Order: sequence, then structure tokens, then C-alpha cells
Amino acid sequence: MKQWTQGWLSYSPKKDCGNNKFLKKISFQGFDKESVILQNAIKELEIGIAGMLSVKTEVTFEEQLETGIQIVKNNEIHSEGYNIEEKEGILTLQASDERGMLYGIYALLRQISMEKSLTDIKIAEQPGSPFRMYNHWDNMDGSIERGYSGKSFFFVKEEVVVNERTRDYCRLVASVGINAVVINNVNVVGPATYLITDRYLEKVKEMTDLFSGFGIKLFLSLNFAATIELGGPNSADPLDPEVIKWWEQKIGEVYAKIPNLGGFLVKADSEGRPGPFTYGRTQADGANMLADIIKPYGGIIIWRCFVYNCQQDWRDYKTDRARAAYDNFIKMDGDYHDNVILQIKNGPMDFQVREPISPLLGGLKKTNQMLEVQVAQEYTGHQIDVCYLIPMFKEILEFKTYCAKEHDTIADIISGRTLGNINTGFAAVINTGNDKNWTGNDLAGANFYGFGRLAYNMKLTAEEIAEEWIRQAFSNDTEVVEKVLKILMESRATYEKYTTPLGIGWMVTPHVHYGPSIDGYEYSRWGTYHRADHLGMGVDRSDKGTGYAQQYYEPNAAMYNSMETCPEELLLFFHHVPYTYTLKSGKTLIQHIYDTHFEGVEEVEAMMASWATLKGRVNEEIFTVVTERFNKQLANAKEWRDQVNTYFYRKSGIADEKERMIY
Amino acid sequence: MKQWTQGWLSYSPKKDCGNNKFLKKISFQGFDKESVILQNAIKELEIGIAGMLSVKTEVTFEEQLETGIQIVKNNEIHSEGYNIEEKEGILTLQASDERGMLYGIYALLRQISMEKSLTDIKIAEQPGSPFRMYNHWDNMDGSIERGYSGKSFFFVKEEVVVNERTRDYCRLVASVGINAVVINNVNVVGPATYLITDRYLEKVKEMTDLFSGFGIKLFLSLNFAATIELGGPNSADPLDPEVIKWWEQKIGEVYAKIPNLGGFLVKADSEGRPGPFTYGRTQADGANMLADIIKPYGGIIIWRCFVYNCQQDWRDYKTDRARAAYDNFIKMDGDYHDNVILQIKNGPMDFQVREPISPLLGGLKKTNQMLEVQVAQEYTGHQIDVCYLIPMFKEILEFKTYCAKEHDTIADIISGRTLGNINTGFAAVINTGNDKNWTGNDLAGANFYGFGRLAYNMKLTAEEIAEEWIRQAFSNDTEVVEKVLKILMESRATYEKYTTPLGIGWMVTPHVHYGPSIDGYEYSRWGTYHRADHLGMGVDRSDKGTGYAQQYYEPNAAMYNSMETCPEELLLFFHHVPYTYTLKSGKTLIQHIYDTHFEGVEEVEAMMASWATLKGRVNEEIFTVVTERFNKQLANAKEWRDQVNTYFYRKSGIADEKERMIY
Repeated sequence: MKQWTQGWLSYSPKKDCGNNKFLKKISFQGFDKESVILQNAIKELEIGIAGMLSVKTEVTFEEQLETGIQIVKNNEIHSEGYNIEEKEGILTLQASDERGMLYGIYALLRQISMEKSLTDIKIAEQPGSPFRMYNHWDNMDGSIERGYSGKSFFFVKEEVVVNERTRDYCRLVASVGINAVVINNVNVVGPATYLITDRYLEKVKEMTDLFSGFGIKLFLSLNFAATIELGGPNSADPLDPEVIKWWEQKIGEVYAKIPNLGGFLVKADSEGRPGPFTYGRTQADGANMLADIIKPYGGIIIWRCFVYNCQQDWRDYKTDRARAAYDNFIKMDGDYHDNVILQIKNGPMDFQVREPISPLLGGLKKTNQMLEVQVAQEYTGHQIDVCYLIPMFKEILEFKTYCAKEHDTIADIISGRTLGNINTGFAAVINTGNDKNWTGNDLAGANFYGFGRLAYNMKLTAEEIAEEWIRQAFSNDTEVVEKVLKILMESRATYEKYTTPLGIGWMVTPHVHYGPSIDGYEYSRWGTYHRADHLGMGVDRSDKGTGYAQQYYEPNAAMYNSMETCPEELLLFFHHVPYTYTLKSGKTLIQHIYDTHFEGVEEVEAMMASWATLKGRVNEEIFTVVTERFNKQLANAKEWRDQVNTYFYRKSGIADEKERMIY
Repeated sequence: MKQWTQGWLSYSPKKDCGNNKFLKKISFQGFDKESVILQNAIKELEIGIAGMLSVKTEVTFEEQLETGIQIVKNNEIHSEGYNIEEKEGILTLQASDERGMLYGIYALLRQISMEKSLTDIKIAEQPGSPFRMYNHWDNMDGSIERGYSGKSFFFVKEEVVVNERTRDYCRLVASVGINAVVINNVNVVGPATYLITDRYLEKVKEMTDLFSGFGIKLFLSLNFAATIELGGPNSADPLDPEVIKWWEQKIGEVYAKIPNLGGFLVKADSEGRPGPFTYGRTQADGANMLADIIKPYGGIIIWRCFVYNCQQDWRDYKTDRARAAYDNFIKMDGDYHDNVILQIKNGPMDFQVREPISPLLGGLKKTNQMLEVQVAQEYTGHQIDVCYLIPMFKEILEFKTYCAKEHDTIADIISGRTLGNINTGFAAVINTGNDKNWTGNDLAGANFYGFGRLAYNMKLTAEEIAEEWIRQAFSNDTEVVEKVLKILMESRATYEKYTTPLGIGWMVTPHVHYGPSIDGYEYSRWGTYHRADHLGMGVDRSDKGTGYAQQYYEPNAAMYNSMETCPEELLLFFHHVPYTYTLKSGKTLIQHIYDTHFEGVEEVEAMMASWATLKGRVNEEIFTVVTERFNKQLANAKEWRDQVNTYFYRKSGIADEKERMIY
């Protein structure tokens, strides 16, 4: 008995739906029989079909079928994409490469799992972005930075672990179309620096090879000061010939051992990490040095843009952390080499429940860009509170930047449509750990699943993704599907209601980032302020304030610049607003704060009540885990409600119109 | 070369002042030649005199002198006291016991060190309290809870350490009249529970014997649940015969090995520590059980009264942590056995820079009481900021409780004058560590020294004690004495000015307790609130509020109960006061807050300027260490000033009359 679940690949018995007839014979045509991906695909088909429909499948090669499934190589299909079509008893799956074939097979299994008929099926999918990536923030001591699902399953006691769970991880990851994974924390400290040395390379190679069998490129986070820490030159200056020589040799060694390594992710000059700034060099100098060395091996350097001054003085109203990524990177647009990708957080701050889109995305016009989101719920409830994030990611993808006449959305940029480039992507700091259910709260599995699906197919709606996941991971029972779907789809709005209002963000317990502390970051060095006084709150980022709004293209810049046209959900991000300001709802700002905070708690109570009716309809263990988390979420929501309402009542002196309890 | 200083016992060369003539011959009369205390006293005399005056002393026994010092046993002198008198070339020191003799010899050395003439000297001192105690919060891993002077010198890597520094510690401690020391943290966890087992007893005995040679009783903090943790009965119920039997055997074992052990200090049922409440028993049940068992060995049980609900809901305005010690202990007054002493913190909260006196002191009329203060600067600047605490301790001692017609001050209570008891005392959580200078900031040495001196002689003024210390530890240079004295004497008022106003307390960074966080504890479970809103601030503890003021005897109760008669320095502790309330100074509360916070920073600047003029006049190392700390103190004071002023300006909307910078 495995000590972990199979998530959405549990392959429990399903209704036939007329699908059995296709499954008795499956023929592969045109693919290399010896390929590991193919072998893995066949294994998946066999266990999936056996588990769900109790059909014994015969797999053949190069044979025309009368009835059944033909899996055919067709070079006209988009790389990593697939077509599925049923005609007269024969279901044909076409792909131009093994990844596409594998994804297509998972798509077939998904249909069966969701109890959809394969008869008359017609699906064509192709990836939304070349690099679809999970970033794990796992440390080698087994801890996970911002991890809420137990310990690492990649690292235990400073050793790299490759076992049966790693394989199941690959299956889950490949099944949703993820093709790249960074296994270690971007903050590379201690033994993690040694991942590129003999101490660990053998084991990293083993993991890389396992990943490759599922079409996944393994990446490592790199310590920019590895030269110094690994006993090379006592410098990390990217223009120092000794440093360059050291990296040439080091990367040569690594690729000699692991030719299928994807490349490296680097967090430099940020929050105390070393980087090129230390040596008076640019971020481009740093990234290009590594990129040039890794290029002959086909490797990629992913360079994070999370660079800001984390020693700000709260008294300083001029400096604006929101401006930092753009200010630090825009000047070097065009300087980055082809195999460098800048990885840019979705918002200008740090994964708050509501932020505007980073103006650096699309601001850069000559640079490869990768969008980074956070599936790990650092600021969105620690996988205690339910917060289905795919609707937020959809909003991000659909944001119109006006960086070009057409194809100017974030989805366009990271698909390569905007700039016609191929090194682009979509990365998520992922939410897994060695908890039995992988994600702490089972409901957070929807984000683990959903990010991959969305990155692969950006046209899917958040509802479609959620329904797919519920049917596969929980049940096809209509009541379960409808109720869980409603919970997921409302969850982010609910979380936002009881936490920080109208885009202001933060107000969380420092360091921990769970639970309220309204002034917790108000007098800190982190650049994260709400500036609330007795009259109003919010940060003026208009042209009269920090000027952040001017980092956008028009008409976005003008829209954000004015309190009247600024989208209200971001009002306090862009403007300092009186408590008595009337919103479009007709409510004052302060009344809006009170109302949403009372509503937020009521909505959690309603979710809990809805969930409670599912006892007996979902797996007992899932029911219990989720119920326990809901109890904690309710306590958290009440604490937020009471602290926020009390704080702003005490500060504004304006009473709640409805005279509810404020302390 | 020792890796630590000798503090006020440095015995550097001094002016003769006509003292040499007394020092050539010293005769002991009536004391046991073999006594270790006597041997230690002689050694101290020899090194002290040699160091300060380069005189070679001849020590004799039972000889009448023509000129010199006679140290004579005289049973009429108060226990632990001494008389010193010079007549016609003979200086006579009389004491009835060895401690008194030792203290008298330190008094002689002090005179010499302070360059005071011994001619015509006439001093008689006797201890202000039977138990004069340092409590160390040292953990066995070497850390010190609330320690700001390095690591423990009692414990290193879970071993007990007895070495040359331990001996120097004893000399410092005995020189100021301390006669009891608890070596380990009141929060007894991990290996510290095993201090009463064979693993450590041999080493504890060695330390106890060393201490005894300086008249110091060694005490241990006890884990009330040691029964369970050391493999005895699975209960700590003080009325369970199995538990009692286990303790009888355990304490028997301990005293068989260490007959001169002082006894035990216990923190029970507090902040997560186990205690009698767990078993439905009273604090008296717990204390008496141990006291009865330890009685045949002459041991003492010191029982801390720091018992309160540390899971308070901030929304709860009725529960008042300030009431807790009194409410928890007053009912059992008279139930405690003779060799139990209740150790009561000076204030009802927790060592804030300003608190009223705990009403439990004197509230108890049939119970042995020990006053506990904190010399370790947990809430008073971490031995970075200078804060000479003796003036505060003087205020505490002089507080008139009205618990009796006469002898009703705190000093009376802990001297035994009020109740006619002998098991009373004065304890300080002390501020030492293995820093070279023992106390982090050299200026904090004044508190280390001063507490002992004050406990021994409560009639000394804070100025007298400070001057004694400065002359011995720094210099007899008048400019040094005057300037450092001024710095010390003003330091607490200055610290209070830039931190929390008018007795409200807290507003510190949670856990750390250094630096401001105005709302840091406002929405917490710790019962420590300022209740500031847009109109005013403070906690109503009058009969219309939590009723805490009623725990005092009249007329104190009435005085605190009314906003008009309440001492203004405690106004916000007892009352919720509008920002516009006019203080006796004619200023409004809010203007008082602004003014004191600007003044506090100015005063720190003035202290620094004064200190800077002492370069070359005090030891270079001391000058540097203190200067560095002053720089940090100034930054801290500015941060407090700006956060407090900004917070209350933002909340009240009332501008500073003087239009100074508020953010």
C-alpha cells in the first residue's frame, strides 16, 4: 500500500459509457518501440484502463485496426500537441512527437475517468507555451520554503531521493502537460550549492533520466556565488575570466554527466542572494555569461526578475517596491541572449491575492519572458484556506498590455505570439510536499492540477479545469461536481473578502504570512505599506505619487492613474482613498470594508455547510482532511474580519451602518 | 590573560588616601581558620590590597594590634551584617558570622577602591532581606532566555561548567551581598530536567560547594512534571501518593549528595509549563508537597506567581491579565507552609518600563513573599540601550501598600518587618552572560552591581549605588563620575520617553521585545493591549472597567480608580483617556506623546555627546563598547519616536503643535 495517493490518476472504476469497445486493441504506428516515453505511455494506458473499466488491452505496433485505438505519428501536428478523433469505431490519436503522444494518451484516460463517451470525440490541443514549468522551493534538509504540504520528496537529510513516489510525481506532472521542473529552492544555500558537484550528480542524473521518460526536463536552481563556495575563484564577477573559465569547466562536467539537463534557474541580487550587482555588473552580464556557456549543450538560463530593495525605510514615500522589477530590468531590454528567459512574477509585489499585472511583462519587447505565478498558497491561505487560483491566472493571461497592435495579452507574450520567440514560458511555484495527498488540503490539488492544464491549454476556462479535476480526483457524482465546483469557483473571491481590501495586499503576520496583522508590515523594511491614517488608506502610485502607473502602456497607464477609472478591485493599490469615498456600488470605502469582511466569513460558513452535505459522497479520508481545514479556515476568516474591521473602525471612527459587532 | 573582565573588582591602582597604614597587618579573631569563606576572604584582601595600593599584607589570627585591621567575631551583630569603625589607628570590623565578615571585607575594599579614607570610618550595614537572590535564565544548551550578554557560563553543550570564571562570578556576587543564586532557567525543559539526576549531580555539587565558599546558596529551577519526564509515575498530581513517594526519594537522593543545596524555584501552570492546575489541585497543594519533603533538609521552595491566561482573546475586554496573579493567589493566603516563599513580580504585567506595584505584594498577609524584578533588560533595551534600573527598584521598595498600620512598604514586606517572618527576599532575573564584560553593555554592569547592593542595603539611594559602581568599575576621575552618574540617573526616564507613554507598556516587537511595534501585541493572545482608537487610548482598569484598581488597599484603590488622582505616569495603565485630555503640565495627552518622543531622542543624543567627551578617561575597550551601543540606542530611539508619533498622528489626526516631522 503506497503512503501517498494517486490524486487525479487514481483510476477507480468508472461507468463504461460505451468506451470498452475501443479499448481492447491499441495500435501504435510510427513511434519508436524502444522509447522510454512510449513504454511509460503504454504502462499508463494499461493500468488506467484496467483500473477504470476492467478491460484487458492488447497493445500492437504497425497494424491497421477494424475497431480500437490507433496512435499514429503525424509530423503535421504541432510539437507537443495531439489530435483525437473517432470515426466508425476507430479512434485515432495523432501526434508529431512523443510528448504529444503521451499527452494525448492522458487526454484519453481523462475522458474515460470523467465518464465521457469516446464515440464521436474530436479534440485537438496544442501547448499554450513552450516551457510549462513547476518550480519547487525544496531545500536539501527536506524543508520546503513556503511549503504547506509536509516535507520534500526530492530531498531527505541532504540526499537526493529517487523512488516510486518520484515516478508517481512524474506521472501526475506529465498528465497535465508540464514539461519542465526545477527541483530545488531558488534560494540556493548550504548543500544545495553542491548539486552541481560529484557529491550529487549521479543521483541528479538518475532523477533527470526518470523525468525524461515522461517528457519532463529537469532544471536546477543555481547559486550565483558557487565559484566562491565550491572553492573556485574568490569572485562571482561574471566578466572575470577566471570566473568564466570556472563555469565553463563546471557546466561542461555537469553536461558530460547529464546531457539531458534542462538548464538553470537563478535568483540573483535579491533578498540577500549574491549576484552581478555586487561586482558592478548588470543582470544581463550575469545571465549572458551563464547562457553562453550552456548554449552548446542546448541549455537554458532562467533569470528571475524579483529584484528590489528590501531595506526600505517606511518613512520613505518616494521609493516604491512595485516599481522595482521594471526599473531594474527594462533598461537592458534586448541585451539578453537567446537562451536566457527572464522569469517575471505576475504582479509587481509578491503573490498577493490581488495585484495588477507586472508592467515588465510586455514592457520588455526584445527579451524572452516567462510568467511566474505561485500555486503554493503563501499569501492565499497556506493550503488551509481553500483558494482556487486558476480564475486569477486566467485574469492574468487575458490582461491586455497594449505592447503591440495585436497579440498583446500576457498569454500572447508567453506563448511567443507577440515577439515570435520560442524561449518563453509559464512557471508556477508549486504546492506539493510529502503529505499523503500531496497538497495538504485536498482541494489545493485543483491548483496543482489546474496550473498544468492551463499552461498547456490557455483556452480552457477555470470552470472546465475545475470540473475535470473534481471528476477525476473526487467523483463524477453530479452533486459532488456541482458543489465542489461552486466552492472552488467562489473561493478566491471569498478569501479576498475577508483579507485585504481592494488590492492593498499584505496585512499578514510577518514572516509566517498566514493570519492578519494589519500593521505587521507597515513600519517594516519590506516596502509593503497600506498608509492608513484616520482619513483614508492606500498607496498613491499615480503620477502624483510614486509614478508606478506610468510604467504601463496607454491606455492602461491613464486608466490606473485616475481614481475614477481605476478598476475598483485595485483602487487601494493605486490610490490613497478617503474612507468616505463612494464606490460604484454606492457604498463608502469603509462600509465596503465592513461589508466584505462580514460577507467573507458568511461565505466560508456556507462553503462548509455545502461541504458537510458531501459526507459519504467523497472519499472518507478526503472528507475528513478538508473538513478539518475548513474549521481552521473559519477561525482564520473570523480573525481577519475582526482585526480588519476593528482596526479601521478604531482608526476612522466611522461606525458600521448595520451596527454589527466590531471590537 | 583572562577572557573576561573583573568588573567592579578590577583592583587597579588607587590613591593611598592614608589607607596604607591600616593594611600592613590584618588580624582575624574568633573565626574558624579552616573555613573556606575565611580563606576566600583573605585571598580577596590580599589581591585587592596588592592591586590597589601595592601593600604587602600580613594576616594573623588572635592577635591584638597596635595599628591595622582587626576582624572580630561578635555575636551581637545582626546576622550577615557588619560594623566597621576606626579608632586611634585600629580599624575594627565586627560580624557575627562568616557572611557578615566577608561582606565587611568587601566593604573595606570598596572604600579603598573608591579612594575614601578609612580614618574615622564608621559603617554599619545589615541585610535588607534574608534572601537576596539572582535568578539566571540559562538553558543547558548555553542559550539564555532574555539574555543579552552572550551565552551561559554555567552551561555549555548540555554540560555543567565549573571553572575559574565561575569563581570570579562568585566573587562579584558575594561582593554585593547576594546570598542565593538560581543557576538554571525557570522554564525547565530538555536536559535541565535531569539536573536532579546522577547525570549532573556530581557537577552541581562541585558548583554548590564553590558557591558556599562565598556564602552563596545554590538553587535549582525544577520541572514540576519531572516525575513523568524522569520515568517516575505518569502523573505530577501533588496529592498522588506515588508522586509524593517519588519526590521523597528524589529529593532525598539530591540532598544526600548536596546537603548544602538551597532548594528549588518552580514556575508552574504558566505559559505552557505543567503544574498542579492540570490535576485540579491548588498552587498551595503543589508548593506544600515539595516544601514538606524538602523541610528536613532545611530547603526552601520558591514558587513563582506569574500565573495568567496566555490564551486571551483580544476581543475580550473583561479579562485582565493584570488581575491574574492576585486573583490566582490571594484566596490561598495562609495555606502555604513556612518554607514556601511566593515569588511575585514587581508589577502585575511583565517587567515593563513603568507598571504599578503588584497588589499581591502586601495583599497576602499570611504568606512569605519574595519580590522579583528583572535586571536583564528584556523590555528596557536589551543592554543595548542604557537603562539604569535602580531608581525604579527604589520606587518599588518605597511603595506604601497600606497593608498594615506601619511597616507597610514593599521593603518592609520583603525584609520581614511587616509580617515578622524570616523566609522573605528580593530576587532579580540577572543580566549576565559570557561576554567579556559580563553584561553586554558595560553600563548595564551598574544594574548587575546595583541590584545586589540595594537588596543588601535598601537605604542606599540609587545615586549612591551608581557612584559606588562608577568609581570601582570605571574611574574615580570626577568628570567620569559626574557624567556617567548623570547618564545613568536619567537613562530610565529617557528610555520611557521614547518608548511607551504613561504606563501603557508593550508596543514592542513581538517575541523579540526590542524595538517598536505599536500594534504588535494589540490583537494577540497575551492580554497586553493599548486599546487605542481615533479618540483615545489606555485600558480602563477602574471599577467601571476591569476592576483591577480595586485589588489595592485604600487609599491606593481610590487613587488609581480616578483619572484625576491617578499618578500621571500610570494614567494609561488605569484609564482609557482621550487624546485631548489635559495633563497637569497643561499639555494634551497627544501633545505629551509627541513631546516626550522628540525629547527622548534629544536626550539620547545628549548622553552620547557627554559620553564622547570621556574618551581617554575611561578604559578604551569600555569606551568603544559603550559608544557602539549608544549608536544602536539612538537608531532605536528614533525608530520608536517615529513609529509612535506616526501611529498616533495617523490614528488621532491631531497635528503636532510644533509642526515637527511626523510621517
